[in-house]
Amino acid sequence: MRQRNKPWAKDRMNEYPQYLIANPEQHKGKWFEVFEKNQPLHIEIGTGKGRFITGMAKANPDINYIGIELIESIIVCALDKLIEEELPNLKLLNVNAAELEKYFAKGDVDRVYLNFSDPWPKVRHEKRRLTFDSFLRVYENILVDEGEIHFKTDNQGLFEYSLTSFSKYGLLLTYVSLDLHQSDFIGNIMTEYEEKFSNKGSRIYRSEVKYRKK
Amino acid sequence: MRQRNKPWAKDRMNEYPQYLIANPEQHKGKWFEVFEKNQPLHIEIGTGKGRFITGMAKANPDINYIGIELIESIIVCALDKLIEEELPNLKLLNVNAAELEKYFAKGDVDRVYLNFSDPWPKVRHEKRRLTFDSFLRVYENILVDEGEIHFKTDNQGLFEYSLTSFSKYGLLLTYVSLDLHQSDFIGNIMTEYEEKFSNKGSRIYRSEVKYRKK
Repeated sequence: MRQRNKPWAKDRMNEYPQYLIANPEQHKGKWFEVFEKNQPLHIEIGTGKGRFITGMAKANPDINYIGIELIESIIVCALDKLIEEELPNLKLLNVNAAELEKYFAKGDVDRVYLNFSDPWPKVRHEKRRLTFDSFLRVYENILVDEGEIHFKTDNQGLFEYSLTSFSKYGLLLTYVSLDLHQSDFIGNIMTEYEEKFSNKGSRIYRSEVKYRKK
Repeated sequence: MRQRNKPWAKDRMNEYPQYLIANPEQHKGKWFEVFEKNQPLHIEIGTGKGRFITGMAKANPDINYIGIELIESIIVCALDKLIEEELPNLKLLNVNAAELEKYFAKGDVDRVYLNFSDPWPKVRHEKRRLTFDSFLRVYENILVDEGEIHFKTDNQGLFEYSLTSFSKYGLLLTYVSLDLHQSDFIGNIMTEYEEKFSNKGSRIYRSEVKYRKK
């Protein structure tokens, strides 16, 4: 995603600690406290400008959501959407996905969403892909038993890679669509990127996987 | 595949027992005996008119092949190719895939090929798909440990189904291409059907899976 430099982003983020959680390590093991209701928690990693996660939070008031985005100049766009909507079941978090175990305890999260993650196409960058083995381990360490990852992308190479990476890790593939927008899947909420690229004719790939009982 | 009625098919098959194995149950556990060389055995289930399996046998003289096809009027076309080519490492078999355990012992087969299998798109016909659970069990019972299935199809629904069926069975997905003819896969041998439908613009999907060590 192209980023404009926004020197004011940090100030804006600090203004809204009720939406953008400032000290996430304090909530480890008790995230329900930051929400109005104690209900399942789904997180999106790489939430971008927030269209998906705000749409999901609106459509599913019985689920709590956290949108996680590393880049300040992008997460402020998601913050603007949340200020406008005032959704009690959505928070934002400006942290690195590789460090989620610092902020979430085993079982804090019920589902992880990955949408249009950076494909890092070069083989030497494999470790940066959000479906690489080390990330799958991080998600396992914060998810409930048999927790799920829901993943969509328009990048064929990333999707092929991710299916084999999931399998190698031992995840159970429960759903796959090789053309989401032509499928009978109900309730898809598009990201900004998804709308743009599917309008240009790109296929959208989607999968659901689940950690196996140990 | 459209079949013409060929009342002479059975006679033709009986004429060439050196190519079309007549009493397969006699070779169970010792298939190497029917070939010139004792080397790995790969089988194709649903071999159709035989273009793939004859192409593979020609390209890989250090592998033995058996093409399996249930329909007599179709397998005679494969037989005609074999009569013409005289390949010492290829045999044909006119039996039902569901009954392979009658003819092959555990470990007889090193790899199974499934190419453009009937998709049986109706849910009530799921059990007839060659990637359904009961077939995966049959293949396991005739394959070596960590034996492989190589599968290609142009049918999106069958490919999606098969990926989840493989995963549910516990198979390891080691390779996947969502557009084989645009990929860097080397050595693809096309089936008759594959050439026709890829010329019409269909994508070809391909995967390799492997049984896990027990």
